[in-house]
Amino acid sequence: MRISDVGDGLMGRLIAAYGPEGALGQVRQGRLDPCFVDEMTSGRSRPPDVDRHLRAWQARLQAADPLADLDEGERLGARLIVPGDLEWPTQLDDLGPERPVALWLRGDADLRFSCLRSVAMVGSRAATPYGAHVSAEMSADLSEGGWSVISGGAYGVDAAAHRGALAGSASSIAVLACGIDIVYPAANHDLFAAVRRKGVIVSECPPGVRPTRPRFLIRNRVIAALARGTVVVEAALRSGALNTAAHAVALHRHLAAVPGPVTSEMSAGCHRLIRRAEAVCVTSARDVIELVGAIGGDLAPEPRGPVVPRDRLDEETRAVLEAVPARSGAGPATIAVAAGVDLATVLSRLGALAAAGYVERSDRGWRLRRIARNER
Amino acid sequence: MRISDVGDGLMGRLIAAYGPEGALGQVRQGRLDPCFVDEMTSGRSRPPDVDRHLRAWQARLQAADPLADLDEGERLGARLIVPGDLEWPTQLDDLGPERPVALWLRGDADLRFSCLRSVAMVGSRAATPYGAHVSAEMSADLSEGGWSVISGGAYGVDAAAHRGALAGSASSIAVLACGIDIVYPAANHDLFAAVRRKGVIVSECPPGVRPTRPRFLIRNRVIAALARGTVVVEAALRSGALNTAAHAVALHRHLAAVPGPVTSEMSAGCHRLIRRAEAVCVTSARDVIELVGAIGGDLAPEPRGPVVPRDRLDEETRAVLEAVPARSGAGPATIAVAAGVDLATVLSRLGALAAAGYVERSDRGWRLRRIARNER
Repeated sequence: MRISDVGDGLMGRLIAAYGPEGALGQVRQGRLDPCFVDEMTSGRSRPPDVDRHLRAWQARLQAADPLADLDEGERLGARLIVPGDLEWPTQLDDLGPERPVALWLRGDADLRFSCLRSVAMVGSRAATPYGAHVSAEMSADLSEGGWSVISGGAYGVDAAAHRGALAGSASSIAVLACGIDIVYPAANHDLFAAVRRKGVIVSECPPGVRPTRPRFLIRNRVIAALARGTVVVEAALRSGALNTAAHAVALHRHLAAVPGPVTSEMSAGCHRLIRRAEAVCVTSARDVIELVGAIGGDLAPEPRGPVVPRDRLDEETRAVLEAVPARSGAGPATIAVAAGVDLATVLSRLGALAAAGYVERSDRGWRLRRIARNER
Repeated sequence: MRISDVGDGLMGRLIAAYGPEGALGQVRQGRLDPCFVDEMTSGRSRPPDVDRHLRAWQARLQAADPLADLDEGERLGARLIVPGDLEWPTQLDDLGPERPVALWLRGDADLRFSCLRSVAMVGSRAATPYGAHVSAEMSADLSEGGWSVISGGAYGVDAAAHRGALAGSASSIAVLACGIDIVYPAANHDLFAAVRRKGVIVSECPPGVRPTRPRFLIRNRVIAALARGTVVVEAALRSGALNTAAHAVALHRHLAAVPGPVTSEMSAGCHRLIRRAEAVCVTSARDVIELVGAIGGDLAPEPRGPVVPRDRLDEETRAVLEAVPARSGAGPATIAVAAGVDLATVLSRLGALAAAGYVERSDRGWRLRRIARNER
C-alpha cells in the first residue's frame, strides 16, 4: 500500500498480471517483466512512463514499514481487507486497474454487507442551510429505509449526510482521503467517532497518511464505486462533487441530483446535471430508492427487508443468525455461546446481519427484525 | 360568440363544416344538417348530445345581442378578430374544433406579431416570494431578449410574469377567462392597464362575461396554443398550471419547468414534470430561449433581431415601416402622412412592427431599432 500512490493504474495492472507478491518481487528486483512493459507501452497513444513509476515505487519501498502499519492499525482497532476477503466489496472490481489494492476499515459495520444497499450522498463543503437540511433529511430517510449512506468526511453535505444516516437504522460509511486515524477536518472528531460506532470509516491510505488535494479526487472513485447510486445534493458549477458524479456515470451507476432554488449558485451544478439528463431529479429518499432499487434482481420487493438470501450467508454468519432470539433480545456474549463462535466473530457478524436487515439492536440486546422473523 | 360556450368542440366542427353563417342559420332554424349529426354521432364511443347542444345554442341565440357587444367593444377601445384576419394567430388552428371562434383584444400590441416569439409563463396564484421573484426576473429577461410573455391575469406567477415582461422591451399578453372589460382579481387593475399600453389583453368571451371555474381551465388551452412553449414556474401537485402544461404537451409545444427547493410544496408540480421528463429543467431566460428558439427555421440567429422577414410583411405594414425615421423619431400622425395611410392603421401597424422588433418608441417618437437599420 505504501509502494504506489492511491489509484495508480500501472501498479493495478502489474498486480492483476502477477499477483501482489509477484508485483512486489519485481519492484524489489528493480526490473519489471519486459513482456509487461511492452504491453503497457506499445501501441498506446499515451504510454505511462514505466521507469519513472518503477523508481518511485522503489524509493517508497525503502521507506515502507508494513509491519509497523499493521501494528498501528491493530492499535487503532482497525482492520485491513484485500480483494478476496469476505468483507471485500466486489463492486470495486468495476474500477479495473484503479481498484484499491487494499482498504483500511475502522468501525463496527461490515463494509460489504452495508454497501449491498447503499447510496452515496455528495455535495458542497460550503453547503447552504437548505443543502445541509436536505442532506440530513434524505439520508435519515434512506437509513430508516435500510439503505446505508456513503460519503466523504468533509463539512457541509458530507457531514450532514452522516448525521442523518446515523439517526436511521442503516450504516453510515465515511470514505476518507487520508489515513483512518486522521480526523480531517478536526471539528468532525465526534462525528467520525459516531460513524465508527454505527458504521465504518474506510480508506485506501495506510494510517498516518495526510490528505492531499489529488487524493480527494482519487478517493471519489471509491465512493462512486461502492454505492448503488450517487446523489448530488448541492454543487456549484465547479464543485468536486461533480467529479464523484462523473465517476458514477463512468461506472454505470445511477446518478441523481437534488434541485434547489435557481437563485442559488450552490444548486447550479445539480441543475446542469438534470438539464443535460445526466442525473435524475430527486426530491426525496423515496425518489432515490425508486431509482437505485430498480436495478439488481437480488433486491427484496419489500424495501426494508433483508437483501441477502439466507442461503447465501456463510456458515458462521448463519450460525450467529440462528442464535439471535426472535423477540426478547440477547447480548453478544450469550449469542457467541449459543452459536459456538468467539466474541469478535459474533460482533462482526451481528454488524453484517444488521446491515443486511436481519437483526436489530433493542434495549434488551440483539433480536431479529420483524421481517426476518417470518422468513426464519 | 354568445351562442356556444368557450371551447365547444361541436360548434367548432359545425363552423368548420358550414362556415359561421351556415352554422348560425342551422341554429336559427333549430335543425342541424342530418349528415352532420350522423357524422358526429355514428361510430363514436362517446357521441355528443347534439339535441342538448342545439337547445342550449337556441336559448342563447334568443338572449344574444351581437350589435350591443360590438358597440360595447368599440366603447372599450377593443377589437374583435376572427380566423382569417391579419392579426389572427394561426397557431390557434392547432386546437382543431376547440379553436376559439373569435377573440376580443384590447391593447396596443399586435397579437399575431407578438406571439411569433412568445413564451407562456404560468404557475400558482399562491406563489411564494421565490416563485414571484423568479417569474419576474425570467420574464423581464425574456422580454428584454425580444420574447413576448403570455400569461393569465391572476395573482402570483401570472401577475409577476406580466410585471417582468412590462419591464423589458417585448409585449405582455394577458389571456383572460372573462370579458376583456372585467378586472379579475380587481387588485390587478393597474397591471391590466399597463398590459393594455404595452401589450394586449385577450379573451374569447364577449365583454361583460364573468369568470367561472371551467372557463379558467378552457382558457388555458389558448395560452398554451398561442406560445412557442410554456414555462411552469411554481406549481403544487394539483395546480391549474399543470393543466396548461398538459395542453402544451398535447399541442406539441415545448414545456419547461423551473426547479425550486424540494422542501417547497409549490415546486412539487415542477419537480414531477422534470422527473418524468415531461418538462425540461430551466433556470434562466437563456435556458428557455435555448429551448423554444431551437425550433422554427424562421428564427433569426440574433435573438434580438426582427423575426418576420421584411418581404413577408404586408404592403401597408411595409409602407409604415418605410416611413419610420432611422434615428430622430416621429409621431404616428407624421408617419401616417408619410406612409399614406390613416392614423388607426398606423397605430396598429406600429404595434405590430414593434413586437416584431423593427421599430421602437423613443422619447421623440417612433424610430427604427438598431438591428432593423442595418437591414433596411
